[in-house]
Order: sequence, then structure tokens, then C-alpha cells
Amino acid sequence: MTEDKLPSRTDNFADWYNQLVLKAELADYAPVRGCMVVRPYGWALWENMTAALDRRFKATGHVNAAFPLLIPMSFFEKEKAHVEGFSPELAVVTIGGGEKLEEPLVVRPTSETIVGTMYSKWIKSYRDLPVLINQWGSVVRWEMRTKLFLRTLEFYWQEGHTAHATPEECQEETLRMLDVYADFAVEDGAIPVVKGRKSQSEKFAGADNSYSIEAMMGDTKALQAGTSHNLGQNFAKAFEIQYLDRNNLLQYVWTTSWGLSTRFVGAVIMTHGDDQGLVLPPKLAPHQIVLIPIYKNDEEKAKVMPVVAQVERELKGFRLKTDAREEVTPGFKFNDWEMRGVPLRIEIGPKDVQKGTLAFARRDMPGKAGKSFVEHSQLEAQVAESLQSIQASMFEKALAFRKAHTFEPKDYEELKSVVDKGWAFAWWCGDDDCEAKVKDETKATTRCIPLEQERGKGTCIVCGKPATEKVIFGRAY
Amino acid sequence: MTEDKLPSRTDNFADWYNQLVLKAELADYAPVRGCMVVRPYGWALWENMTAALDRRFKATGHVNAAFPLLIPMSFFEKEKAHVEGFSPELAVVTIGGGEKLEEPLVVRPTSETIVGTMYSKWIKSYRDLPVLINQWGSVVRWEMRTKLFLRTLEFYWQEGHTAHATPEECQEETLRMLDVYADFAVEDGAIPVVKGRKSQSEKFAGADNSYSIEAMMGDTKALQAGTSHNLGQNFAKAFEIQYLDRNNLLQYVWTTSWGLSTRFVGAVIMTHGDDQGLVLPPKLAPHQIVLIPIYKNDEEKAKVMPVVAQVERELKGFRLKTDAREEVTPGFKFNDWEMRGVPLRIEIGPKDVQKGTLAFARRDMPGKAGKSFVEHSQLEAQVAESLQSIQASMFEKALAFRKAHTFEPKDYEELKSVVDKGWAFAWWCGDDDCEAKVKDETKATTRCIPLEQERGKGTCIVCGKPATEKVIFGRAY
Repeated sequence: MTEDKLPSRTDNFADWYNQLVLKAELADYAPVRGCMVVRPYGWALWENMTAALDRRFKATGHVNAAFPLLIPMSFFEKEKAHVEGFSPELAVVTIGGGEKLEEPLVVRPTSETIVGTMYSKWIKSYRDLPVLINQWGSVVRWEMRTKLFLRTLEFYWQEGHTAHATPEECQEETLRMLDVYADFAVEDGAIPVVKGRKSQSEKFAGADNSYSIEAMMGDTKALQAGTSHNLGQNFAKAFEIQYLDRNNLLQYVWTTSWGLSTRFVGAVIMTHGDDQGLVLPPKLAPHQIVLIPIYKNDEEKAKVMPVVAQVERELKGFRLKTDAREEVTPGFKFNDWEMRGVPLRIEIGPKDVQKGTLAFARRDMPGKAGKSFVEHSQLEAQVAESLQSIQASMFEKALAFRKAHTFEPKDYEELKSVVDKGWAFAWWCGDDDCEAKVKDETKATTRCIPLEQERGKGTCIVCGKPATEKVIFGRAY
Repeated sequence: MTEDKLPSRTDNFADWYNQLVLKAELADYAPVRGCMVVRPYGWALWENMTAALDRRFKATGHVNAAFPLLIPMSFFEKEKAHVEGFSPELAVVTIGGGEKLEEPLVVRPTSETIVGTMYSKWIKSYRDLPVLINQWGSVVRWEMRTKLFLRTLEFYWQEGHTAHATPEECQEETLRMLDVYADFAVEDGAIPVVKGRKSQSEKFAGADNSYSIEAMMGDTKALQAGTSHNLGQNFAKAFEIQYLDRNNLLQYVWTTSWGLSTRFVGAVIMTHGDDQGLVLPPKLAPHQIVLIPIYKNDEEKAKVMPVVAQVERELKGFRLKTDAREEVTPGFKFNDWEMRGVPLRIEIGPKDVQKGTLAFARRDMPGKAGKSFVEHSQLEAQVAESLQSIQASMFEKALAFRKAHTFEPKDYEELKSVVDKGWAFAWWCGDDDCEAKVKDETKATTRCIPLEQERGKGTCIVCGKPATEKVIFGRAY
């Protein structure tokens, strides 16, 4: 039951987001500060994401496994940058079975250390390589400022951990998984993303290089929607992951890790949502179609309901939800399912039954433009076509929005003004100080150095020194 | 690479089990005492189990969600029997983000308390009922004596939590999910199970009644393979889960919970395994078929490999693994995949290519009996038939074994002797003292009071008092 209206996105994007997540029953606040409960509608959305990703992981040769939740504290201390990055965020178990533990156990914030420990045991020979393992699960990071889906103490994700014989294969894998994430975001999420390299200050604690896909949300802020890390030999050396090569020489492996989390649910909400609520891409929506019978009396009901049953049978290949509630009006249902972002609504009333038609309404095109009548005989084909068209339009709309809010400022003054209304794509010398200055003065950080760009010779937009690459500056979630 | 022979099951069943789990790369010991790493082969088996169960949960109207891992300690104290049962087993987080927590947080050992807290917030009216939610995840219980898959500090499982308006619906749900588990065990696991009620001393901490499916392992010990609990109004009252009924009166709900875990992997290993290793049921096996090319030289290889590729295409509908390793012999591969329990092996050699045949070898029937030559033109149909036949035979074999090791002792002396070699099915008055006496003197516990039995009037096998039901006594994992 949903009665209160959402705040508008332009008035207060943050309120709109928080209220929508609760109202659409995607998630709720848990009793522990900063934790969330993912409710069935939100979990069904995440399950569709996990299925779409898992398919891609398996198609690229990966297998799933499960590493333990509890990791000895000492493991974190083996990789210097890693422990520095993660130690402020750890949840620590000190009591087990009523007794104080000799060594405290960390609830995993990420699994490089435990995976590294096992890989050092499993990997002996070049024949054992590459190892391509992924894990689905949750991790805990003691965040201070939290927001449902975007930053919670516990979040759900997958983490891939691979080991390779050569640095070339390791880099190839790092970029392959970045491509997998981008393909998933574009094809299934209808979210345009920029693939790029993170700056040294923004990279993962323990990585040589980190890569990310960055998406623009409806308020023009950036969201890092997935990351892939080239860990070089840092973890191999810290955990002694060695193999005998073809010449019988002992070598350290090269490792990667890559992850995508329930943040992506937030990305879908904030990329596509409007003032009426969620707009979900058909490929990920828990319900692709909501079917609403319309009748005023028992006589009409007797005509309409058999057609509803028939449509349910005909559309077995789609994720269809029939809303046959009798205690609420069709108008209420329209609003309710619009708020929940179901891509396509089909109405069946007595007149439709008589004419052999059905009324379609597209969620992504409010008002008359998105409405049409469809011949019942053409139903299945029309549904498939509509869903395809919705998926494509949603992507185009998001891409146009990003283009309209991406600027190429010519000097630092202009950079300072454009980050109020979108992203700034500009030359950067790579210096930490320039990056820090922009962050201090504008709250915009370097999002990524896009892989696809015309390189060359430019001058850093901050200091004027020579630069060879452009970076995206933007405020971010 | 597997070279050492397994111990025989009759010599040392426990060693056979532990070594097999490691050798088949199902799981490994984690660095934290009592924790395990589920390796890709073991996880693929568990994934097939989760898919088979999840399909059944959804078909019976359940949806998935995710509740947090960390639960405030005080929540456990709200239900008296629950806290008594679980407090010796808790892992407790006392430090978060570098600071001592005001209230310690428990790493969930089970989720009734956090689910109850959320249900009390979500459930308002009879229209909100029933709530039928399941969660996939892991839980932590500080066990002292652990064994891979059977009893580990952290284990993977699903836990269903439902809320109902009436005690009748609640009991119906409890038994429905017990049936779902039994159907899964029989149809997919090829494991015969007895559905029954647990004794009061063996029930779940906080339940009115617990039900289980009990399976007999290859050493005749019992394994509780899934449980379903009728929680009555115990958690509803402890967590104030109330709703307004049709008459606008405030009522407590009735709740259930039910779970099946990675223990079931242990059940599959110990029900079907033999001295050569695993024997996996086709419906759950990660690889249903292993395809082994056989050739002695490049000329033969050139004849064989195109047929291998053709067979791979023809058998796309099955889970097929081709073992094309060149560094090991076909004989080594036969042993290796036998140990790993692949239900059907297909060999292709140059003579087969010439004759248009393929050599089949069934894992469940060692020696000549399980071998046959199949016309290539009949391949797909023959594979389907073989897998079906393997699945059915495995069930029949396990059922025959259980029947041969289930006894109906006529007096207490006989009971004491038969529990050495199997289960004892006997009248029991229901008294805790009689149950405790059997446990003390024989190490056999009451497994369950089978739902399907001829009731009537008997005399307790321990004390001779009147009894109306029979119970299964057995030693158990």
C-alpha cells in the first residue's frame, strides 16, 4: 500500500532515492547501524543481476567456490598497503563459543588474504594455472556514512580471484573482466559506462592498477559500478604463491581480483528512475510485465478473467505478474506498479475482450506516447518487441543525459564551474597534488582515466604542466 | 593428480570420507579451526542442489531475501529456549572500525531473531499474510568437533522463515517444506529418507515441534539431512509479530523455519560412495558425462578428435566434460573421474570411429556389467536413458541397503545389539528418561518418529509402559 507521494528528483534527489528504496520495498534499514535488509523485490532484482553476471563469468572460463567468512587478523598484516587500506574498516570477532579467542578473527571485508593463503597451497605447477575462481557472498566494512545499497556495513557482491603465469595474461584478465562488467551494465542494466583506469590515489589497497566502470546518475554524480584490479605480484609475494614453470624454476604468480556489488542496484535506481519511481530495464526487472484486469461488476469479471488466464499462458516465457487484488482500484494499481518500475503494463477490460485487443502502457514513456492497443493474436511478438524497444530506449536516454552533462572545460575556472552540473573531461598531468587540489576546492575526484580516448600532448588543467592523458573529474557516490 | 589409494570403506569409513573429500577436491581445511573452503568441484555440486531446491521453493510460492549477518546480542535473549540452545555456539563481534562496540554483535547462527524483528515491522494486517521468505547464505556456529561438510564452524545453507494467520496453516507449511526436502532428496539426490517428528529433546531451540528427513549413510549411521520447524507463537510473542485480523482484532502470527545445508553434500558422498570414490547422482553431478578421447599417435588423434567435437555438440543439453589432457594416460583418467564420481564415461577411440560406435561405462556399475557399446546415431537418446537408469538404480541400491539395515528389535537387549549394525525401529513411550537411557547405553539417539507408520498400542522397548508410536533409534552424524 503506497499513498504518500515521493519527493521530486530535482527538489531533493537524496530524499527521493531513500524514500523510493523503502516505498518500493527494495530494502529496509536493519536494527544494526548501517546494515540493510534486502527485501524480496530488491533481492529478485539482484538475483537477475547475479544470473546475468554468472553466465558471463562461466562463459569466460571461471568457476565458483566459497572461502570462509572469518579470517585471522594476522593475514591482513602480510600485505602492507592492504592492511593500511582496510584496518580502519574491520569488524572483529574476539569471542567464540563463550571464550576469548587467542587470535582475533576478522569478518572478511574482501578475500584476497584468505584466497592467497589457499592458492599458495593449491598451486604447484604451471599446469595448475590459470586459476579462475569467483565467489558470491557478502562482506563487512565498517563504514561511517551509509546509504541503502550504495554504502552499507554489510553488502552483497561477487569477488573474482585469479592467478596467472605471466604479467601479460594477468593484465588481459583484468581488462577482460572490466569488459564483462561493461557489457553487463550496457546490455542488461541499460546503463552507459566509461571504462577506465583509477588514479594511484583511488586504486584498491594492494593493487598495482585498478580499473573501473563509471556511470552517471540522474543527479549527474558518478557511481563506480564495478572494479577490476591488477594485483601484480603483491599478494603472490605476501602469501608465497609460487609455481614451477616449464623449466622447473620457481616463480611467483600474477593475480587479479574484481568485484561488482549490490551498489549496482543503486545504479539502476538512480540512472533510470523518475519522479513516479523506479524504471527498471526489462532484462533485470523482477516482473517484466504487470497484467491488470479491469472490470466493474461480476458480469464483466466473468468476461475478463478467462482472457487474463489465457494471456498468462501465452506469456509463460516472460516474467509476468498478474495483479488481481480486489481491495484496490485499477488506478491505484497503475500508480503502484509504476512506482515499482515494471517496464510494461497490460490492461484487459471488457471492451478489450470484445475487440480482441489489449492495452499496453510503457513505463519509460509516461502519458499517451507510451500507450498502444495491440491485437491479441499478435500478443507474444508485440511483448517481445516492446520489451526490446524499452531496453534500447532506456539506454539511449541515459547515454544522451550523460553526453549532455559531460563537459570539456578549457581552464581550471571552467572546471570548477562545470563540476556543479556534471563531469569534466580534462587533461591531467597525473600528479597527486593536482588531483588533491581539485578535490579540496570542488569536491570532485578523479573518476577514471578512460581507456578509450585520443591521447597525445596536452597541458594539465590544474597546473599547466605537460599531460598525456585526459581524466574524468566528478563528484561521486 | 591423484595417486594414493583411498582407504576402504569397511576398514575405516571416517578416513575414507575425509580423504575422499580432499582428494576429489570437494573441500579443503581453512586456516581457521573448523572452517572449510568449498572448492569449485564441491561448490558446483552445491550449486546444483541450490538450483533444485530454489525451483521447488519458488513453485510453492516462496521468495528470496537477505537479512543481515550481524545481530545484536540482546535479540537472542528475547526467546528463552532459543538463547539457551544457541549461546554456547556464538561467534561475537566486539570491535568495529577500531572501536569497542557498545553492544556486541553476534555472527548469525540462524536468523529467527533478526527475521522476527523485521516481520514485526512489516506485518500489519491479515492481508500481509502469509509471508513466505527464504534466504540463501552461511551461518556460524562454534562447534568443537568438526568434519568437512557435516559439521563446520561456518556452513552454507538456506533458511526459510514464514508467518501465518492460523496454527493450521503454520503446520501445513511445516509439513509442506518437509515434503519438499524429501522430494529433493529422493528425486535429485537418489537418497531414500524417512520423514518424521523429532523428540522433544532433539527439537530446535525455540520450536514447538521439529521435523526432519533422516537418511542412512553407507556405515549405517543416520544423518539428519533437512529440518522443518513449527515455531508456534514462540517467536511471534518474543518479537511482537502481530496483525489485525478480519475483525480488526490484534493477533499473534504463527511462524515456521526450515533449513537444508551443505551437510547434504556429505549425505550424497556417504550414501552412494564406494571404495573407488564418489558416485554422484546424474541430477546433481557437476559433470554428468566425461568424454575421453583415446589414441596412440597423431594419425589416430586426427581421426578421433573431430568425433569428440561432434559429440560435444550433440550433447550440448547435458553437463559434459571432455578430458583432453595429454600428460596423463587414459587409464589414469578413468581412475581419476571414477574417484570424482562422474556418472557416465564415454570413450572414443579409432576403432569406435571406424565402427560408428561409442563405449559407455557406468560409474554405479563397476566392471563389465556397466559397459556397453552404443551406436553413434543413437547417442543422445542412449545418454538420456543411461543417466535416468543410473539415477534410478542408485536410489534402489540405497533403499535396499537401508531396508537391510533397519531392524525391529523385540526387546531392549536386541535393541542394544542391532544399533551396532543399523537402525532400530521400535515402540517408545515418549519419555525423556527412556530416550536418555538408550543414548547412554548404546550411543544411539532417537532419530525421528516416522510420519508414516502403523500406530496403535504397543509397549515401550525401554520401560515396557504403553506406547502409541514407534521411533527410529540410531547412531548419528
